[in-house]
Amino acid sequence: MNFCSACGEKVELVIPEGDNRVRFVCVQCSVIHYQNPKVVTGCIAEWEDKILLCRRAIEPKYGLWTLPAGFMENGESNRDGAARETLEEANAQLTNMTLFSVFSIAHISQIYTLYRADLVDGKANAGVESLEVALVDETQIPWQKIAFKVIEANLRLYYRDKAAGKFTTHYGEISRSNDGQFNIEYF
Amino acid sequence: MNFCSACGEKVELVIPEGDNRVRFVCVQCSVIHYQNPKVVTGCIAEWEDKILLCRRAIEPKYGLWTLPAGFMENGESNRDGAARETLEEANAQLTNMTLFSVFSIAHISQIYTLYRADLVDGKANAGVESLEVALVDETQIPWQKIAFKVIEANLRLYYRDKAAGKFTTHYGEISRSNDGQFNIEYF
Repeated sequence: MNFCSACGEKVELVIPEGDNRVRFVCVQCSVIHYQNPKVVTGCIAEWEDKILLCRRAIEPKYGLWTLPAGFMENGESNRDGAARETLEEANAQLTNMTLFSVFSIAHISQIYTLYRADLVDGKANAGVESLEVALVDETQIPWQKIAFKVIEANLRLYYRDKAAGKFTTHYGEISRSNDGQFNIEYF
Repeated sequence: MNFCSACGEKVELVIPEGDNRVRFVCVQCSVIHYQNPKVVTGCIAEWEDKILLCRRAIEPKYGLWTLPAGFMENGESNRDGAARETLEEANAQLTNMTLFSVFSIAHISQIYTLYRADLVDGKANAGVESLEVALVDETQIPWQKIAFKVIEANLRLYYRDKAAGKFTTHYGEISRSNDGQFNIEYF
């Protein structure tokens, strides 16, 4: 951030009075420009014994597999955002949505929310951001080709819950150590 | 938003190519300025049979009671944000934090995440954003003086779970009808 989005003048990084963090503050109109984490919302969509995966047609992680998910938009609910992303990326419609997990990824300032849901009719096909979509059972999950650690972690939780015959809502935190290794903790 | 925060030129509201929503886009450098929901994170902090409430020293809802909560910051986890807000608003330390609820409030583009936690030592006193803090039992909750509908809804869920002897993680959506009435749904 270089300029004030309100008045167009320059911003500087200072700690505003009464605050304890540096913020971008306009040198002219004094507006404080807060920057906050973004929410990614998506789903594990079930059909019979299978779930829906999408192969990414966009960067990052072009060509790798993921769950339908994307940035939540202003004015929509978290759950509606997950349904919209599933429609956009896989042309698939959801029902019976329940919150499956919240993951916090502090080093990239993101929160992931994922829902477990049923596909309405089992139909799905690639939207513009997907190269292809697939309904896969547990033996067919491409574990070595999953785009993001948070998605891999959720798939493992999902199959663990499924094996136990009971789904719960999970909270996890993913951090990245200096050597690039990911660490996942559940609370 | 009037000006591009990257280059300082004017922005206009247009639908970018490949998108389906209007965004602020810079007329000079073409940067798309996405705007996304913000996350508020906080807690229901327990001590013996009581929970911690704060009376607001800031607008909106100056003078009314709430749970310690505030906007999550970049670079922190969702759970750490709830602990930080509790420390800032009530000088109180938490342990045993578990996710209690996620609430989506689409008309103000906010997500609330609330944790259930234990106070470390039962100590709490007003931070700069609080007029006072109090440890209260269920009979002492000032139901008519709770600052926000989402907080009232969470307090009711909390005491319902407590009466049932079992806490679960909840997902709720709050909407506001044209006549100003709030509607709460659970999924």
